[in-house]
Amino acid sequence: MRMYDLIEKKKRGFALSSEELRFFVDGFTRGEIPDYQASALCMAICFNGMTPEECADLTEAMTDSGSRVDLSSLPHTADKHSTGGVGDLTSLITAPLAASLGLSVAKMSGRGLGHTGGTVDKLESIPGFRTALAKEEFLDQVRRIGVAVVGQTANLAPADKKLYAIRDVTATVDSIPLIASSIMSKKLAAGAESIVLDVKYGSGAFMKTADDARELARTMTAIGAAHGRHMAAFVTSMEFPLAPQIGNTLEVEEAVRILRGEKPRGWGIRTVAVRLAAEMLALSTGIASDDALRQAEESLASGRAYAKFLEWIAAQGGDISYIEEDRFERAPCSREVRLTRDGYFTAADTERIGLASCLCGAGRMKKEDQPDLTAGLVMQIAPSERVRAGQTAAVLYAASEEKLDAAEEMLRSSLVITDEPKETPPLIADVVR
Amino acid sequence: MRMYDLIEKKKRGFALSSEELRFFVDGFTRGEIPDYQASALCMAICFNGMTPEECADLTEAMTDSGSRVDLSSLPHTADKHSTGGVGDLTSLITAPLAASLGLSVAKMSGRGLGHTGGTVDKLESIPGFRTALAKEEFLDQVRRIGVAVVGQTANLAPADKKLYAIRDVTATVDSIPLIASSIMSKKLAAGAESIVLDVKYGSGAFMKTADDARELARTMTAIGAAHGRHMAAFVTSMEFPLAPQIGNTLEVEEAVRILRGEKPRGWGIRTVAVRLAAEMLALSTGIASDDALRQAEESLASGRAYAKFLEWIAAQGGDISYIEEDRFERAPCSREVRLTRDGYFTAADTERIGLASCLCGAGRMKKEDQPDLTAGLVMQIAPSERVRAGQTAAVLYAASEEKLDAAEEMLRSSLVITDEPKETPPLIADVVR
Repeated sequence: MRMYDLIEKKKRGFALSSEELRFFVDGFTRGEIPDYQASALCMAICFNGMTPEECADLTEAMTDSGSRVDLSSLPHTADKHSTGGVGDLTSLITAPLAASLGLSVAKMSGRGLGHTGGTVDKLESIPGFRTALAKEEFLDQVRRIGVAVVGQTANLAPADKKLYAIRDVTATVDSIPLIASSIMSKKLAAGAESIVLDVKYGSGAFMKTADDARELARTMTAIGAAHGRHMAAFVTSMEFPLAPQIGNTLEVEEAVRILRGEKPRGWGIRTVAVRLAAEMLALSTGIASDDALRQAEESLASGRAYAKFLEWIAAQGGDISYIEEDRFERAPCSREVRLTRDGYFTAADTERIGLASCLCGAGRMKKEDQPDLTAGLVMQIAPSERVRAGQTAAVLYAASEEKLDAAEEMLRSSLVITDEPKETPPLIADVVR
Repeated sequence: MRMYDLIEKKKRGFALSSEELRFFVDGFTRGEIPDYQASALCMAICFNGMTPEECADLTEAMTDSGSRVDLSSLPHTADKHSTGGVGDLTSLITAPLAASLGLSVAKMSGRGLGHTGGTVDKLESIPGFRTALAKEEFLDQVRRIGVAVVGQTANLAPADKKLYAIRDVTATVDSIPLIASSIMSKKLAAGAESIVLDVKYGSGAFMKTADDARELARTMTAIGAAHGRHMAAFVTSMEFPLAPQIGNTLEVEEAVRILRGEKPRGWGIRTVAVRLAAEMLALSTGIASDDALRQAEESLASGRAYAKFLEWIAAQGGDISYIEEDRFERAPCSREVRLTRDGYFTAADTERIGLASCLCGAGRMKKEDQPDLTAGLVMQIAPSERVRAGQTAAVLYAASEEKLDAAEEMLRSSLVITDEPKETPPLIADVVR
């Protein structure tokens, strides 16, 4: 088998076989297939796509490039994955909520990059919280309390890591089959029986339209189903941030409030987090979605979900008193960003809101950056709300005035205030099962 | 400027600017732009093509990556280029014929690869002939006798050489804009005012259809015209070999016969060689093509072209007596390949005929191979001819019986004998001016 022939075949629009895709992934991972052939193949895939079979085969080969987490000793294993967004702190709520419903949530999460945040960074804002656990410790904790969340290990789908590094510098990232295979190779390796995906669309998401997000959702659920997983995918809006508080400590604070029973008005975070947990329960047990949703709401209302959250944080070394006593810190410099006109907050460039938080210091522009966990912003106006000139749109928190200057400019450019109200896009545009 | 953005732009279907293409070519040649980005860009070009302006700009940037031959001290400089074929020995006739008409032919030629032959190999079959001349020697010879043919120097469009090496292993060779830019970068660097192209189509050519060849011809003439050259391109058939004798010594022998006045029946070589020389004359002097053709025929008939050929060979150190005494050698083992049925020789897989000659030892499967200059084959049946079972289709010449076995099998698989006669495709399908 020659890599040249695989590139030629894909370029001519034919599907690659399971053996061919494995030959590529294995050879590329071992360094036998050079980067310039991998990038040429990726570009041909960008133009000619891949069949569902090819996506499933590519994903499996990438999963097999590293080790798989064996969760077979745990009951009702369920995972969730979001394609990333701004104020997307669902995992902080969904993971303990699902565990409070009897599921085993053995989850690997990522760090933030660019305008999007990452669960691992958020958790590390809790004093003492450890995001690196030994394998046995990780599984024991899930067995004991139903939930553990750690950073991704280096040996999780290393082929994907290597391929992504090439795609990232050759303008071949935005191919739905390649995105889907990349995400699902890690989800399959992470081992859960049931997987619920949250595929974002809109100004703060990688997929700009609900249609593209739906296609990505379908592609990923098909890959999971082809490998025997129970799959569902929500297509949810990132036309606005999901939550009003954006930043690491700020998002933990928001999660705690919701777990304590608060219902933020005008923001999607609570709805999405609860729906994701309910869907994990429905997929894992076979009960109806309505029943699952009712159980999830009950767990939240009764305080069981919050108790599970505290148990989880404590189990991974986090300081519970920090949370119970609301000792959430904010960066020393702050600034109120006031509106200059009356109208309705009808649209946002959510990517820019995420970048404003990043400029406050909360994120990473490069992988090597170290985020300021106390930085970020708090939106004071909600989507669709009627607003007035002089009203505070957001409060920014950063380590210096210079950072606030840059963040303020970015934030101002992100807000669209119009004379007339406008219907906002649906929070949950679709559920793919 | 970032290479990433250039790839992205081309992938989205936009045209790259002159500055962007130069940034790519210069950075890639200097090793600052990695191979994996170059291959991704080439693949995007395969799908999205290039505008005439992009082709001209890419070509110029590649030409400028090396040195240009300065022919400005010579009158009426004219060059020819064939896209490569089987039995395509036109340069051996056209170069001295054009020189006999008063043109300055300072020509750089290539070596054979795969099923196609190369002028430099053919010339080296003449005892003593030197294909490497110092720059001044090269120009002096053209000034003195009107013709010199040498191998390509390493510094002729090095960017093209480097880019072709990547295209060759990433299935990105067959893009008309990339092929056209590659060829024309070397032709521009070689410095002639007038350039006549011979773009082959058919079973022995890279372009399988006359339409594709016509597009390549148009693209190349447009590039040359954009850089102030007088351009013309013939679109000629490679549905059959151009000449009956295929191999290095064998093709020199064929050229000598035609230069002495023979007219091979049923083969295209003489017509194409003479038309190319006439077009060089017409382009260079502005006289009508008919007049130019008449002058070329007169030169052949009078023996002036043959005298020029001998003068040229002698000037580059070749042994004239070898030619004048017909001391052409053939490889020691030979085999007659006989037909097994009656019919008409209506079609050929010309690539396979070229490969049969290569298997005899005449060519190179890899660049490092050293061709057997005395090997090859002589066709005994001409295109469209009525043939009989038992008749000799070809005689093969090689160093061993094993080579003959492999070559015979290949040759047999290349010949199509049908019950009914069939019109052969036009020898000259088009002339693009």
